[in-house]
Amino acid sequence: MPGFDAPIRELRFLLEDVFRFDEKTAKLPGFEDATLDVVMAILDGAATFAREVLVPINLPGDKESCHFSDGSVRTPHGYKAAYNLYCKNGWPSLASSPEWGGQGLPPSVALMVREFIASGSMAFGMYAGLSQGAYRAILAHGTDELKATYLPKLVDGSWTGTMCLTEPDSGSDLSRLRTRAEPDEQGSYRITGTKIFISGGDHDLTENIVHLVLARLPDAPPGTRGISLFVVPKLIPDSATGEVAPDSDNLVSTGAIEHKMGIRASATAVLNFEGARGWMIGQPNGGLRAMFTMMNSSRIGVAVQSVGVSEISYQNALAYAKERRQGKAPGHCGEQRATPDAIIDHPDVRRALLTMKVLVEGIRALYVESAMLLDVRASQPDSTEGEAAESRLALLTPVLKSFISDCAVQITDLGVQIHGGYGYVHETGMEHLFRDARIVPLYEGTNGIQALDLVTRKIGLEDGRVLDAWLASTDQVIASASNIEPLSHLVSAQRRAVQHLRDATDALRAWSNGNELDQAGAATDYLRLFGLVAMGAVWLRMAEASSAAREREPHLASFHNGKIGAATFYFQRLLPESDWRFDSVMQGARTLMTLGSADF
Amino acid sequence: MPGFDAPIRELRFLLEDVFRFDEKTAKLPGFEDATLDVVMAILDGAATFAREVLVPINLPGDKESCHFSDGSVRTPHGYKAAYNLYCKNGWPSLASSPEWGGQGLPPSVALMVREFIASGSMAFGMYAGLSQGAYRAILAHGTDELKATYLPKLVDGSWTGTMCLTEPDSGSDLSRLRTRAEPDEQGSYRITGTKIFISGGDHDLTENIVHLVLARLPDAPPGTRGISLFVVPKLIPDSATGEVAPDSDNLVSTGAIEHKMGIRASATAVLNFEGARGWMIGQPNGGLRAMFTMMNSSRIGVAVQSVGVSEISYQNALAYAKERRQGKAPGHCGEQRATPDAIIDHPDVRRALLTMKVLVEGIRALYVESAMLLDVRASQPDSTEGEAAESRLALLTPVLKSFISDCAVQITDLGVQIHGGYGYVHETGMEHLFRDARIVPLYEGTNGIQALDLVTRKIGLEDGRVLDAWLASTDQVIASASNIEPLSHLVSAQRRAVQHLRDATDALRAWSNGNELDQAGAATDYLRLFGLVAMGAVWLRMAEASSAAREREPHLASFHNGKIGAATFYFQRLLPESDWRFDSVMQGARTLMTLGSADF
Repeated sequence: MPGFDAPIRELRFLLEDVFRFDEKTAKLPGFEDATLDVVMAILDGAATFAREVLVPINLPGDKESCHFSDGSVRTPHGYKAAYNLYCKNGWPSLASSPEWGGQGLPPSVALMVREFIASGSMAFGMYAGLSQGAYRAILAHGTDELKATYLPKLVDGSWTGTMCLTEPDSGSDLSRLRTRAEPDEQGSYRITGTKIFISGGDHDLTENIVHLVLARLPDAPPGTRGISLFVVPKLIPDSATGEVAPDSDNLVSTGAIEHKMGIRASATAVLNFEGARGWMIGQPNGGLRAMFTMMNSSRIGVAVQSVGVSEISYQNALAYAKERRQGKAPGHCGEQRATPDAIIDHPDVRRALLTMKVLVEGIRALYVESAMLLDVRASQPDSTEGEAAESRLALLTPVLKSFISDCAVQITDLGVQIHGGYGYVHETGMEHLFRDARIVPLYEGTNGIQALDLVTRKIGLEDGRVLDAWLASTDQVIASASNIEPLSHLVSAQRRAVQHLRDATDALRAWSNGNELDQAGAATDYLRLFGLVAMGAVWLRMAEASSAAREREPHLASFHNGKIGAATFYFQRLLPESDWRFDSVMQGARTLMTLGSADF
Repeated sequence: MPGFDAPIRELRFLLEDVFRFDEKTAKLPGFEDATLDVVMAILDGAATFAREVLVPINLPGDKESCHFSDGSVRTPHGYKAAYNLYCKNGWPSLASSPEWGGQGLPPSVALMVREFIASGSMAFGMYAGLSQGAYRAILAHGTDELKATYLPKLVDGSWTGTMCLTEPDSGSDLSRLRTRAEPDEQGSYRITGTKIFISGGDHDLTENIVHLVLARLPDAPPGTRGISLFVVPKLIPDSATGEVAPDSDNLVSTGAIEHKMGIRASATAVLNFEGARGWMIGQPNGGLRAMFTMMNSSRIGVAVQSVGVSEISYQNALAYAKERRQGKAPGHCGEQRATPDAIIDHPDVRRALLTMKVLVEGIRALYVESAMLLDVRASQPDSTEGEAAESRLALLTPVLKSFISDCAVQITDLGVQIHGGYGYVHETGMEHLFRDARIVPLYEGTNGIQALDLVTRKIGLEDGRVLDAWLASTDQVIASASNIEPLSHLVSAQRRAVQHLRDATDALRAWSNGNELDQAGAATDYLRLFGLVAMGAVWLRMAEASSAAREREPHLASFHNGKIGAATFYFQRLLPESDWRFDSVMQGARTLMTLGSADF
């Protein structure tokens, strides 16, 4: 079974040396109490919870999977006890508003905790994670009555939430959505239709589940402009007490659960709404907008999950590479020794481990940086800074979701490979992490859909000013690192990659006038190029911070040497992929559409 | 459940138009009867067997897995019946010698059949595939008595074979092997030790299993020079009749089977040899050489498996992409239509499908080309041509094993991704294919080990003449394609990549004198570069053949257009990865070893 030691030192470095949490988030109105020391204490608690409560149920929960019988889901052994403790410890309420029982901490803190939880058990984290989206949607768009009924329960974790979007014919294409909502005589609606792939759609962790459901009103226009959002509880709360009685079932039934490649302890349900009572939130036909409140939060959540599952894979690959001894490493030739060398001393294994290290630390830096934009937005939504943070998040969300999730698959794949044949068997847990990770490029909008969002909508946001400002920020990172002599070759590699991204952006903007095919054909390569540049920027910042801190903190010399060495590896061996991606972007759809579909 | 339509048209194209089977293999002494028409008829039969017998048991067999109780393995429902039919149809004996009951067909034919079998069920193919290695090792190194006892049974499939190399502390590093072999008074040996990860180590398909076991004699020198090879049957054949009685158990027991990520219908056993009787084959302490007869054959077998599992994934992704309708594809904008477009019309899905097509057709061409070298070697082992074929195979084996297996993971991963959420659930079978494919970069020597073999041994084979001759052959491909005007931009891309490979080879050769760290640090990137160039060569040949055939075969215009379109995609969007790989090779171990292992 994999071990886990939460990356506390890593996060302290990011918050203190790289992103200056105390001068940023902890200076924001409302977050003054969230000093670095407070945050680190919270993270220490989450680390213990993940290691002691979640890791032990993760691998067995994968083997056992969820059970489905008589229309109900039972989670694997230990999941209910873990969830109870999760609530008792107050983990669900970290970033929720004190008005509804929350702790009012910055959103970034909740996300870092989610990273640890995903390391402990990605499947467990999904039950809790989706409640955040439901909370946010009801908070932003619900009536006072709905808020009073649902928010306290979501905040303390007594109830969980779901997002019910997908239908059999309506996955990436929400315009085909068919679920109907008809007004009843009580001011609520009757929801009828089938939803699939609903994470946490049923389970035995809580007494109630709050489904957020997209459906069409009777007079709705076709397409995505005719979709509304409804709160549909599994059990209908008593209007006086807000509590649920055992016989208060709504007309929602679970048709089946999926047998999945991974996250098998997370129930993925087919839900049948058979005239179930629902309450509209947001405007009629304005459901998509309300849903995006949840979606964007979920997409960043996917990035955080990706980092969590990657981290535990990396840690275990590293431990194995230090322990497993096979053959003589070059450089030791000729020497006759009793024991072979640890495989970490073999350059090819070293290359794989460095790739894992650079990617996992890079993607963590990427999400933490964005999480601190969430803090700005949460603290002062209506300020110029808040709006700028909102815009930048809108730009970066598809990159965070796709680039980071692709990295998670790559990292956990390397975790398997470093273990050799042992990586392929259940006991080491490495293949389990890889199977769990494989979901992240698929759900919450496939990575291909994210790439289209980036090239068709996000690069033109506010007439392109949002992206231009982000590019300018990467120039500042370069300018700052340029002052440090040992980083000069890293800086020149990054400068070249940024220029590629600028040129690629110009091409995409030119194509946006009537050349949608090229735009779409370049989308995935463009997103990858964007991600590589973004990762270059955070690695430059980390290298700069470590260069400075190394002198100040001689006791951490090994840590900072590791950072600078990893950064060097990134710029010399991984970032050059950006030349290839740039080249592909510039070809648009040229080579893609020459074949007819019959020629395949 | 996935469908399967064996790539008959594709293989006919390769054999007829690209590699000229009738003028090559069918002109070799002993293979005159193996005309193209005969081979295609055999492949038609194998296609039917794979589609009708294997595909239906593949997905259910994954779900059921192998059973282990009371020391015995039971294969999933339907596997025994399928194996019986496999033997009855004569599939095990295709390329074996008529002297031992075989059909004497060229090895390439058996490999193409294995491709179809791997498409039908990779797990099933493993029981049969390893018998080939045992057959070959006994044929090459066994005494007449051993041959007479074992070969007919392996050839007709009544018994299967295994390869028992790996031990808990001895995976990639065979020098640590501990299993002992002590001579007994009957001229045989007593084998004692534990072997792990033994594919087909136990099962209920046949009455007997022939283990080929590496072990040490009492006076053996340490390291790999002290390893001998033994035939150790599960049941000991009667020395008079050659048959096995039910009570003729040898002292071999099955300790456990592994719970694996994939190929779950293939039993992977822990075998305990407890003084089991064995018979030496080959020379004392010469076991490694004898084992390599099996290993090299198995490594090409892994390449063939990889193509098989990739093909069925591609076919089903393609079918799904033509059928699944989501959203409006660009180029159709503005048009109001009742139904959305098929996702194959979306450029980003098209990009993924083209990647799958180009890779699967390219890796098939790579193995078929090498399989025809096996034909040359088998027909005239002692001729100049036979020796040249042997040398080239030795060079290409690590590339075939690793590059092709990496492609299989990439292809089956894309097969999952194109299916969206449906790719992640059991029923569509796409995640099953991906899980099965994930073994190929791991077993028969991890891909990292293959890369080291390539850079430390293979590039210097016969003072480098083997590689130089292969590079010269890629120049010939370029020269030939240069005559065809529409291929000129493909040719120039390939020329650049070949030059990179030459320059990288020069660097590696320079490092081979005392610079083993750089050599090892560059190994994986070098192998990847080699594979990309090799694939470029076969794609140029296919494009040239299709350019010629298109005019001659107007009824196949769509097929040939598909080929030329796919080739264009390869050279414009995939081959440029070689620039990046070249760049990495040239850095050797520079960025890899600067960190101490404590700095990670």
